[in-house]
Amino acid sequence: MFCLILARPENPENIGLVARAMKNTGFGELRLAGTGRPGPLAFKTAVHAEEILEKAVPYADLKEAVADLQVVFAATAKTRKNFRVLAVQDAIRKMFEFPASARIGLLFGNERTGLTSDELKQANYLFTIPQARRQPSYNLSAAVLVTLYLIFSWSRPKKAAQLKKPMVRRDQESLIRLILQKLELKGFVHRTNKQHVTEMVYDLFGRLTLTETDRSFLLALFSKGPDEF
Amino acid sequence: MFCLILARPENPENIGLVARAMKNTGFGELRLAGTGRPGPLAFKTAVHAEEILEKAVPYADLKEAVADLQVVFAATAKTRKNFRVLAVQDAIRKMFEFPASARIGLLFGNERTGLTSDELKQANYLFTIPQARRQPSYNLSAAVLVTLYLIFSWSRPKKAAQLKKPMVRRDQESLIRLILQKLELKGFVHRTNKQHVTEMVYDLFGRLTLTETDRSFLLALFSKGPDEF
Repeated sequence: MFCLILARPENPENIGLVARAMKNTGFGELRLAGTGRPGPLAFKTAVHAEEILEKAVPYADLKEAVADLQVVFAATAKTRKNFRVLAVQDAIRKMFEFPASARIGLLFGNERTGLTSDELKQANYLFTIPQARRQPSYNLSAAVLVTLYLIFSWSRPKKAAQLKKPMVRRDQESLIRLILQKLELKGFVHRTNKQHVTEMVYDLFGRLTLTETDRSFLLALFSKGPDEF
Repeated sequence: MFCLILARPENPENIGLVARAMKNTGFGELRLAGTGRPGPLAFKTAVHAEEILEKAVPYADLKEAVADLQVVFAATAKTRKNFRVLAVQDAIRKMFEFPASARIGLLFGNERTGLTSDELKQANYLFTIPQARRQPSYNLSAAVLVTLYLIFSWSRPKKAAQLKKPMVRRDQESLIRLILQKLELKGFVHRTNKQHVTEMVYDLFGRLTLTETDRSFLLALFSKGPDEF
């Protein structure tokens, strides 16, 4: 089950084009983070996909928009220092390793800025759509269209899913924060390395798409060691 | 060698978006049949792809526009009574069966009408881009983008690894053992939980397919904390 999340989209026409691309390729659920309901300009470009806009749910912020999802894949045009970035085809292969019931979010950032470092932390995986040259990058609706088309045309492998169903993002993030707190208490995180360590921890534990079992184990590991690990 | 032909395009902004999609995916040659040179509105949407518009060649009619090509593949959203229509992936497979030196045309029709029966006669093959429902069809620049992206990713050398190269297994395992030792020293691993913890640690850190960068980070995390983490 897929849902599409746009973080701080600026141009209403793009939102409409995204809805049209979703309809073309068979997707229905759209979430808008940090912006309101789609306006008339969005409806203008959402030919035959108005229903998707009508049902689109606005969220005050991204964290809330992904809280109930199990896995989030975020699109980025840039390489990111502390995060591992998959090519879109490999990201899609991974998506189909999760159980069919897992709720998977596809996250796309603002047209001009892309996703901020903070927004990236809401994702388990980053992916990028290969392009022929550094410039121009794909525009928002183009990136969405290519991604959704590739998912749509992907034939789900016949075999059973291989990955366990992760916790919802809300719980994944609480756990990551808890680990960070622990590291901070232990003096491992300090002012000069804070951003770096934080991003590394988000990248590492994001890639793990943490399950309930992982949580119990990591909580034990990070919090309950005999001599207060 | 590919060239893109637009037959009677109406909307200049679409021509610009097509140029941008071409630039994104590494194509350069654009022909315009039954229309003049691209105007300022086309340049407005052709971000970073203005050069393609400048070099675009207008032809009075389609027959002339394809005369020097060896093979023409025409996109159609509709099934056509007397023509066989390939799915885009099969069309692309066929394109790559021709010698690399063959000049292959990719033909897209007018935004509203698509290709007329007469125009279809200028093609060797028709292809269609699968869609989830009958409506809406892909808009012109979307159809071009999906087609070019698929060709681009097809011809892409089978190529640079997408994931970072993990360390060799020997080093992955040394690192895992080191972490386990550390846990044992700290009293976290003991006789009754040893097998369980060991397996959990192997599972967690196995899934990370650890790289050199991960190693440095984890070693710091597990060994070099200020108070001997």
